Amino acid sequence: MLNLFIVFAVVVSLLSFLFAAWLYMWVKKQPSSNVRIAEIGAYIKRGAYTFIKKEYIMLAKFAGVVSLLILLFLPTPIWMGNFLDNIAMTVSYIAGAVFSAIAGVIGISISTIANMKTAEAAQRGIKPSFMSGFRGGAVMGMAVVGSSVLGVALIMVLTGDTTLLLGFSFGASSLALFAKAGGGIFTKTADISADLVGKVELGIPEDDPRNPAVIADNVGDNVGDVAGMGADLFDSCIASIAAGLVLASVLDKGSDSMINSAMVLCFAATGLLSSIIGVFFARMGNGTATGALNKSTYITTGIFVVLTAIETIIFDFNWRIWGAAMVGLAVGVIIGIASDYYTNDERKPVRHAAKASEMGPAFTILSGLSYGLMSVLPPLIGIGVSSLVAFILCAPLGPGYAMFGIAMSAVGMLSIVGMIISNDAYGPIVDNARGLAEMGDLGEEVLEITDTLDSAGNTVKAITKGFAIGAAGLTVIALLGAFLSEVNEAALALGLPTIDGFDIMNPRVFFGLLVGAAVPAVFSAMLMLGVDRNAQRMVSEIHRQFNEIAGLKEGKEGVVPEYDKCIEIATAGALRELIPAGVVSIVITLVVGFVGGVEAIGGFLCGNIVSGLLLALFMSNAGGLWDNAKKYIESGHHGGRGSDAHKAGVIGDTVGDPFKDTSGPSINTQITVVSLIASIAATLFLTMSIF
Amino acid sequence: MLNLFIVFAVVVSLLSFLFAAWLYMWVKKQPSSNVRIAEIGAYIKRGAYTFIKKEYIMLAKFAGVVSLLILLFLPTPIWMGNFLDNIAMTVSYIAGAVFSAIAGVIGISISTIANMKTAEAAQRGIKPSFMSGFRGGAVMGMAVVGSSVLGVALIMVLTGDTTLLLGFSFGASSLALFAKAGGGIFTKTADISADLVGKVELGIPEDDPRNPAVIADNVGDNVGDVAGMGADLFDSCIASIAAGLVLASVLDKGSDSMINSAMVLCFAATGLLSSIIGVFFARMGNGTATGALNKSTYITTGIFVVLTAIETIIFDFNWRIWGAAMVGLAVGVIIGIASDYYTNDERKPVRHAAKASEMGPAFTILSGLSYGLMSVLPPLIGIGVSSLVAFILCAPLGPGYAMFGIAMSAVGMLSIVGMIISNDAYGPIVDNARGLAEMGDLGEEVLEITDTLDSAGNTVKAITKGFAIGAAGLTVIALLGAFLSEVNEAALALGLPTIDGFDIMNPRVFFGLLVGAAVPAVFSAMLMLGVDRNAQRMVSEIHRQFNEIAGLKEGKEGVVPEYDKCIEIATAGALRELIPAGVVSIVITLVVGFVGGVEAIGGFLCGNIVSGLLLALFMSNAGGLWDNAKKYIESGHHGGRGSDAHKAGVIGDTVGDPFKDTSGPSINTQITVVSLIASIAATLFLTMSIF
Repeated sequence: MLNLFIVFAVVVSLLSFLFAAWLYMWVKKQPSSNVRIAEIGAYIKRGAYTFIKKEYIMLAKFAGVVSLLILLFLPTPIWMGNFLDNIAMTVSYIAGAVFSAIAGVIGISISTIANMKTAEAAQRGIKPSFMSGFRGGAVMGMAVVGSSVLGVALIMVLTGDTTLLLGFSFGASSLALFAKAGGGIFTKTADISADLVGKVELGIPEDDPRNPAVIADNVGDNVGDVAGMGADLFDSCIASIAAGLVLASVLDKGSDSMINSAMVLCFAATGLLSSIIGVFFARMGNGTATGALNKSTYITTGIFVVLTAIETIIFDFNWRIWGAAMVGLAVGVIIGIASDYYTNDERKPVRHAAKASEMGPAFTILSGLSYGLMSVLPPLIGIGVSSLVAFILCAPLGPGYAMFGIAMSAVGMLSIVGMIISNDAYGPIVDNARGLAEMGDLGEEVLEITDTLDSAGNTVKAITKGFAIGAAGLTVIALLGAFLSEVNEAALALGLPTIDGFDIMNPRVFFGLLVGAAVPAVFSAMLMLGVDRNAQRMVSEIHRQFNEIAGLKEGKEGVVPEYDKCIEIATAGALRELIPAGVVSIVITLVVGFVGGVEAIGGFLCGNIVSGLLLALFMSNAGGLWDNAKKYIESGHHGGRGSDAHKAGVIGDTVGDPFKDTSGPSINTQITVVSLIASIAATLFLTMSIF
Repeated sequence: MLNLFIVFAVVVSLLSFLFAAWLYMWVKKQPSSNVRIAEIGAYIKRGAYTFIKKEYIMLAKFAGVVSLLILLFLPTPIWMGNFLDNIAMTVSYIAGAVFSAIAGVIGISISTIANMKTAEAAQRGIKPSFMSGFRGGAVMGMAVVGSSVLGVALIMVLTGDTTLLLGFSFGASSLALFAKAGGGIFTKTADISADLVGKVELGIPEDDPRNPAVIADNVGDNVGDVAGMGADLFDSCIASIAAGLVLASVLDKGSDSMINSAMVLCFAATGLLSSIIGVFFARMGNGTATGALNKSTYITTGIFVVLTAIETIIFDFNWRIWGAAMVGLAVGVIIGIASDYYTNDERKPVRHAAKASEMGPAFTILSGLSYGLMSVLPPLIGIGVSSLVAFILCAPLGPGYAMFGIAMSAVGMLSIVGMIISNDAYGPIVDNARGLAEMGDLGEEVLEITDTLDSAGNTVKAITKGFAIGAAGLTVIALLGAFLSEVNEAALALGLPTIDGFDIMNPRVFFGLLVGAAVPAVFSAMLMLGVDRNAQRMVSEIHRQFNEIAGLKEGKEGVVPEYDKCIEIATAGALRELIPAGVVSIVITLVVGFVGGVEAIGGFLCGNIVSGLLLALFMSNAGGLWDNAKKYIESGHHGGRGSDAHKAGVIGDTVGDPFKDTSGPSINTQITVVSLIASIAATLFLTMSIF
């Protein structure tokens, strides 16, 4: 039965590639004629490729070092274990990293075309413009999910070894960690600096071509929000499937049908299929852009529910496990709704923060931080309840099924990820289109359309970000289960006693828990300080250009700023800042493992998950709230643009930028990486810890 | 042997009361002559008593309701258990609450005298002024620790039932929760509003008598920083002894000497004795005020180490357990040093935040948030390592000793709490003295002296606050052990199976963990929003007074603002805002317990501890950092007073105020309350949970 679904997964993923190619061609053949837009679009494209190239060269070196370490030490040190295992693990790791890199490149390649097409299409109306933006985003969605499903299926068919899946997943996520962090630092450096000098100091509008940082800002949308975010969800997607298969393989031991493993692959592939159908039929009818995005998500969800129910009947899957997957999906929606509540400008939190801005920026900040902290409660309860319900549903099926149920929740939640990525990549594309329309002087009417599309992107973004964090949360809980399973497999192989779990009352576990909780805090702080330092460098550069380039400030005909200089600064800074934060997280994990052994690591992962979820949700939601509070003020409330409340709102938004687009979403990846490294180094920690 | 140390504890606590009385008289008989100071001092005193009275009336009602609930349901519902147990538990609860209230009143009563004496003494030089401030603070230190040791000793001698100690501790901490939160909201409402209108809008100096909120601000120092903080440390102190005794009583079962229980009481009383000696000999020689405060802390620590070593020899205590206590003490010092690093203006974090302020307030905020997040790593590692080391030291002594070792770490860390409270209460007293000197026109020279004393208070405060959080952390870990012990005792009594621990892989535990982690976030957010709302009301009132009272703004002779109105607003607002946050924390605990049972509660407490420590450290340190960055700018760096960097610094400080003085330190109390309520409701959760 497993083989059937491997074939199914391969077929669906190939279908998704075909569909992505068709979408790509569709976007590409949309008309374009405006020379100015082509020129600026080329600037953005060149900037994005420059960054990606430099970043990937750096990451290739990093991956090279890690590959060597894996070859020598993982899953077991070469002098202890089977060398072939180490080679297979190394190859899996490299494959994961390469797949992730390819997904990033595909994202950049379509988003830097779709942005221009969307801007030009806006001259023909909102519907064609929406379609260009959405289908551009969908290329990324299809490519990312397709390659994750294909990668997993290939490893399963070639080796059948689920531990290698963890290596594959680790390759994808270690690259995602840096892609997300590096892209996040780049994009916010550029965004903050452009706003600070442009909007605040000089009072020129957003996306004004006189601003030297304006191209860097648009490049940032592509490398941070498209490539980085794609890598992030690619990694969650693989990790959830890998965790499910690791746990399923234990349950399936000795069974011919491998029904549990089959179910994991079946549901993951069905999710992709649902997303393909959802994307294909997405249209902006007579409703709004937000409505169209939401509607296609609901359609995808509905298709997934129905198809998996049919599959459960046909293939005699267990309904309890199907239920666990549905619970995950439902919780994803709850988390999205909660994020929406805290970041929607029609709700109390944003309104309150906007009103508080009248009293000065300190109150904007305080109210945003407060609501951000409050916003963690519904998702954490949601994730907690979903794991509890999955447990209650599946525990009666036998030992091991409870944790498998949780893993299936994660698979269920991530099933519609193809649609989520499509929606999410839509955001930066239309944001870029807005910039191009402004810089290309397409007129007020076009700007209004791109503004509408952009604002739909922002609304949906808050929801998908909450969804991504929740998915990462459930996935890492499942990975915790996978870690325990790996530990016990290694223990059996080495003739050591197996362990039942991680008891909080065991001080080794508690020690790990406390240190693990500190890691996301330190990681996110390092990224924010990176943005802070980098923005200082860039602001100086912008000041220099305005002072030294004659006629720039006045907008004299023919005077262009040196856009490249700003892109270079953002690139160099991002690359310099991204490595330490990631390395610190990985090194602390290893230190804890060698000090306290597998029990400390169990606690460590748990502390890391808990504080990681808390901080990621807090930061993403507070950031989204400030962004929308500023926009709410700008739309004419509390004095509107130029008022003191507006100034306070801009300060809140500046604080929120690295919160929501650098640190918050990078934490997802950080917790996944740490969980995976723990799993594949389980044998090392078992045999080499000090205490 | 236990009886010997009960006597010892009673004797030492009586000694501390005598000493406190002597200090009180000493402060009271210091000369005072200035009519203006007496007049303003009387305003502050009246304001403080007004607030305390209203607060205690409200808390009496709350305690009444809780008493009734305890009478009916705890430790077992009256229809199931022994009614006498419930009566004893209720009486213990009330005793704890009353002791806590008395400690608060003593604090207010001395601090509102010592502030005037310190201001006047400053006319005679820095040394007499320091002595008035320090000895005033020491009255609070001696009274608080004396009553906690006495209370515990009395319950032990009267009942010998350690579960009642938890009830006593719960009484103290539930009052502390509200005293800290209420006082914290009051003080920051007044502080922020006074600064916002006074310093920022009108540009009048701090403590200017024209400012209608200035008296409320000074009242706030007394009710928030003296009474609230005293209640907080009172509660940690009792909780650590109670947790130690609960765990010791299990180990001592069947032993005549009760050596472990004896050791807990012996060490706690010795700590108090060391503090008495340390306070008695504290002098400001030729060094600085900061030096004098630190020196007396080191002396106290040294005395404690030597005395307990001698006791260990004489009474044949186990050296491993002594070692665990010393580890706790050492970690307390490490946490203090780490807090100092992140908040000291001679170190990189504060300097960096001050420099970042040149780029605008968003960067002040971002760098403060980043360093605040980073600052959690050393204390969390410290607490983790200390519990690990205590475990390794004590585990060989037999089952149960590992957790007892951790409890002794907490006792060791809190041993010098008498000195810590003395140092901490010194801060608001000299802060008040500074205000009185300003309002009483005592001249530049006196202001300089009070400024120096005030700044020493701020430096020491950061360290003691870190210490208080660390102590609460270790204490609640020990309480987690006490909870497990209570659960198993109840399980044995009911014929139910006992549990070994709380396995993270059990989804009930994990569910609790996630929800528990969210509670401190929600709790602190509610308090901050309370400050935010309350400050808005107060700012409006200050504006009204400046607009309506003729001649006030200009400082016309004889025109006084309506100070009482501001005090009333701060009082009413604080009382309105303090209850919901506390009640939410308690209700969520009960809901989790009734949903998931004792296993969920074990996870819940753990999540609560981890995220509580993280957020408390983050908020306290970020707040301290912003405060000192602002002061650093004010001392002439980056443009000094009035510069843009200064404005940014003031905004940072305003955000930091509720961080460091309302939410951060209240979280301590929140986690203790929740841990205690879980322990005393253990039977209920065992018998009545849904899953």
